[in-house]
Amino acid sequence: MDLFEAIYGRRSIRLFKGDEVNDEKIIKILDAGRWAPSGGNIQPWRYIVVKDKNIIKLIKMFSPGMFSEPPVLIVICSDKKEAFERGGVLGRDYLSIVDCAMAAQNMMLAAYALGLGTCVIKSFNSKAIREILEIPNHVEPELIIALGYPAEKPTPPPRKPLSDITFLNRYQKRWEKVAK
Amino acid sequence: MDLFEAIYGRRSIRLFKGDEVNDEKIIKILDAGRWAPSGGNIQPWRYIVVKDKNIIKLIKMFSPGMFSEPPVLIVICSDKKEAFERGGVLGRDYLSIVDCAMAAQNMMLAAYALGLGTCVIKSFNSKAIREILEIPNHVEPELIIALGYPAEKPTPPPRKPLSDITFLNRYQKRWEKVAK
Repeated sequence: MDLFEAIYGRRSIRLFKGDEVNDEKIIKILDAGRWAPSGGNIQPWRYIVVKDKNIIKLIKMFSPGMFSEPPVLIVICSDKKEAFERGGVLGRDYLSIVDCAMAAQNMMLAAYALGLGTCVIKSFNSKAIREILEIPNHVEPELIIALGYPAEKPTPPPRKPLSDITFLNRYQKRWEKVAK
Repeated sequence: MDLFEAIYGRRSIRLFKGDEVNDEKIIKILDAGRWAPSGGNIQPWRYIVVKDKNIIKLIKMFSPGMFSEPPVLIVICSDKKEAFERGGVLGRDYLSIVDCAMAAQNMMLAAYALGLGTCVIKSFNSKAIREILEIPNHVEPELIIALGYPAEKPTPPPRKPLSDITFLNRYQKRWEKVAK
């Protein structure tokens, strides 16, 4: 699939068909995440692939941001110990989040190109997720990606026009070339 | 360009040719950023495109993470006031960063597909950048993307194998299918 087709066509999918996602596709998606840039090449990201239906049910109970029960969850965590040891406070408190977000975006584009739908979720109870997935204290669950075959075709959410959010050389200075 | 070709082929570029980047390409890159997902669809992102050579020189003085003088900078900011008003503390302190990072990843992939190189930079003096670009207090410069035609062909940095970072259903539980 063409890159721009993926960027423009990807939607957040909250309703999934029951169909299983085969492991090869999941692995291709994880692999795409691994090729996102990483500050200082620390790569503090850790992935927990959740396919066990009972665990997904449990996680859903503590995730108000999750609407249905997706067939797969990818819980993207960051190892804060490694991020701090190799990147200091900035590495731990900022870059590790950015790294995981960029990996997540690669994964969501990859999933879309493979015919799958995703939704990225932050609205979850970290403490509960940590307990359910036996995540140690030095690792933080950053984002959860719900993954499965889409059972809906959402219309694109309204996007702010570039003219409202783009400036040239100084904040608030309009760029004439950016059309409405 | 194929999505996976972009994901695997993109490298962080720190040395740029002097060639100008035409505005149509810059706008296509900004537009790709705008189609990243955004928590609660808040879209707190703001872009400052810096093409003025004197301003770029100034910014470089306060950005140890910047190696050469790229022809273009895209300073990705988040409007913390809007992020807070519409998304609360989570929106302001977390989602706005994630949104900007995902937009940045879309932009870097788009740039690569257009034959351009990018490097995402966090190592800058926020206070100085804020002053140089006249960024108001309620807006935070999150990430700077250096943009231009690549003058180097870096080899891919070593990536951790999936087998080291991927678990199944529980943290630290190996997934047999993820080969070394």
